[in-house]
Amino acid sequence: MSETTVNSARLKDFIRQAFIAVGLPDADAATVAGLMTAADLQGSEGHGVSRLPQYVRRIRAGGVNVRPNIRVVHEHAATAVLNGDNGMGHLVMKRAAEMAVEKARVTGIGWVNSQLSNHAGPASLYATMPLAHDMIGLYFAVGNANHLPPWGGLDMLLSTNPIAAAIPAGEENPVVLDMATTVAAYGKVKTKALRGEAMPEGWMIDREGKPLTDPKRADEGMLLPLGGMEAGYKGYGLAMIIGLLAGTLGGAAMGRDVIDFNHDDDSVTNTGQAIAAINLAAFGDVATFKRSVDALARDFRNSQRMPGVDRIWVPGERSHETRLKRTTHGIPIAPALLRGLDQVADDLGITRLAN
Amino acid sequence: MSETTVNSARLKDFIRQAFIAVGLPDADAATVAGLMTAADLQGSEGHGVSRLPQYVRRIRAGGVNVRPNIRVVHEHAATAVLNGDNGMGHLVMKRAAEMAVEKARVTGIGWVNSQLSNHAGPASLYATMPLAHDMIGLYFAVGNANHLPPWGGLDMLLSTNPIAAAIPAGEENPVVLDMATTVAAYGKVKTKALRGEAMPEGWMIDREGKPLTDPKRADEGMLLPLGGMEAGYKGYGLAMIIGLLAGTLGGAAMGRDVIDFNHDDDSVTNTGQAIAAINLAAFGDVATFKRSVDALARDFRNSQRMPGVDRIWVPGERSHETRLKRTTHGIPIAPALLRGLDQVADDLGITRLAN
Repeated sequence: MSETTVNSARLKDFIRQAFIAVGLPDADAATVAGLMTAADLQGSEGHGVSRLPQYVRRIRAGGVNVRPNIRVVHEHAATAVLNGDNGMGHLVMKRAAEMAVEKARVTGIGWVNSQLSNHAGPASLYATMPLAHDMIGLYFAVGNANHLPPWGGLDMLLSTNPIAAAIPAGEENPVVLDMATTVAAYGKVKTKALRGEAMPEGWMIDREGKPLTDPKRADEGMLLPLGGMEAGYKGYGLAMIIGLLAGTLGGAAMGRDVIDFNHDDDSVTNTGQAIAAINLAAFGDVATFKRSVDALARDFRNSQRMPGVDRIWVPGERSHETRLKRTTHGIPIAPALLRGLDQVADDLGITRLAN
Repeated sequence: MSETTVNSARLKDFIRQAFIAVGLPDADAATVAGLMTAADLQGSEGHGVSRLPQYVRRIRAGGVNVRPNIRVVHEHAATAVLNGDNGMGHLVMKRAAEMAVEKARVTGIGWVNSQLSNHAGPASLYATMPLAHDMIGLYFAVGNANHLPPWGGLDMLLSTNPIAAAIPAGEENPVVLDMATTVAAYGKVKTKALRGEAMPEGWMIDREGKPLTDPKRADEGMLLPLGGMEAGYKGYGLAMIIGLLAGTLGGAAMGRDVIDFNHDDDSVTNTGQAIAAINLAAFGDVATFKRSVDALARDFRNSQRMPGVDRIWVPGERSHETRLKRTTHGIPIAPALLRGLDQVADDLGITRLAN
């Protein structure tokens, strides 16, 4: 069975209808659907529509508040903490990004943490929001399931806590990094499982420390921190620091308090994220900065390559090319995912995605 | 020949005298000596007194300004750019940390970039400065020599651009991460060379992509980015983003503009660093935050270990234990380093370190 492809407008409308059917206000449903579709467009499959069945299940189980009162609970000139009232993370962090930008306009930098938020999709969605305002975006999040033990340990007390950064350029595309602090993000493991493919060695190990490559056995193993067997203490350290910045700082869950939302549909996750916007104009001439980023991207691209390497990529270029390609040719939906989405559609009484 | 050990007061005084002999004002010489000694005390050998011969050579060649006019060139409520006037980086970044703390007191966060700074030693020295004010410290720097190509490339356009983060705890020690975005920092390569030891495989590769383990051949090879052969594109991305934040943002060198200060004693390096201070009190109750960090550190330490693992370390614990040990028992100085320091002492007409 070959993969189905759908265009982004259809995908967005399908997601929007699903969220309306489970009780989100129309505008909120459209916001979440737009961000989830943007995730699929840029190739972040593990964080786009593939999460819809789980989101719907959670909402129906009462695990997410569909009419949240998202509100500021602490505020200084350059910082704030947003209480997400257990709403969809997309809504909370879009609002947080907007606040960070407004603060950075005045003070040079804005930093906003969330508490009582939820899974918000790929980190780069939010890190890129300040770009339109000639600002750098930084984003940190506590993942929604612990798959990583402390270095040398077996108890999974950490998540894949991602970091994203987006840097404005001039004629070049912005530089956008979005990475889990594990060798592979857990969303990638799920995508492999949906596709029936094996994982490469080095993504996960079992409790004896042996490589685990069957994604269906993911529950029996743990992810390796960035750096792998050799320098994984660095990835472990990054995961911990990001968790403290994104979770603990804002009064959100971290460590033992993290709810595994793959196996729990109704507990409040108290997810924490943090976003910073850094206003280029506060640091010098904006055009000069952008020209420097352009020059750097071109220096990298035109630099000498190792034998067998076709192209040197600047962070964010692959996502950008995927976005262009999928905007024109549509978004591929794996067969197993489509079956799951059809089930959601039938349950909610909405039209199937690819009908 | 066994290693010499010296106590920290003697080491600090030796360094101080060396800097006074090459023209630094007494107070500045004491500040730099204190920070370099702190580096050696915590086990950051690659960034402590081992750099003294190079610093002295650079100052005598006119490559560093011994009487800089360190000044603010851009300022907003929460941000600033400091022009270091080509002074010692330690002086510039201590001042930057102090400014960031003062800003964070008022606005919740302070972020200060440097331009025309110089090598400042280990990142953690500055990231830890906000701790005493119940603030989180973050530090980013552009390294002073390019040893890292873009992923898939051969041209060394990036340095080991380090990141450090320091998080206040209550009864536990603060969590302190200080890491290069390469598998190994170049300072570690130098330390191996000084000690006559081989490097492990995975630190460096030669231009054919083969492992390079002889630190004396370091000039023929390149460092591997964090993630190694498997996920090194992540370390590459981190190195680039940190370079943009610490260098380009403040108008300092990045990419092709970075001066290799191992092979150039007189060009102005235009080194850039950035420091952020995040005021815990702006995000909630400080005591609650600290209790959460304590609980997390204890959860990690007491969690189940893999077979053969004696202890689970929280980032910063090793440095803390080294500091305690060296404060009591002294700082070991490798024979090759001691010979270099004796040469410096003789050249400057000051008393040898271990006389």
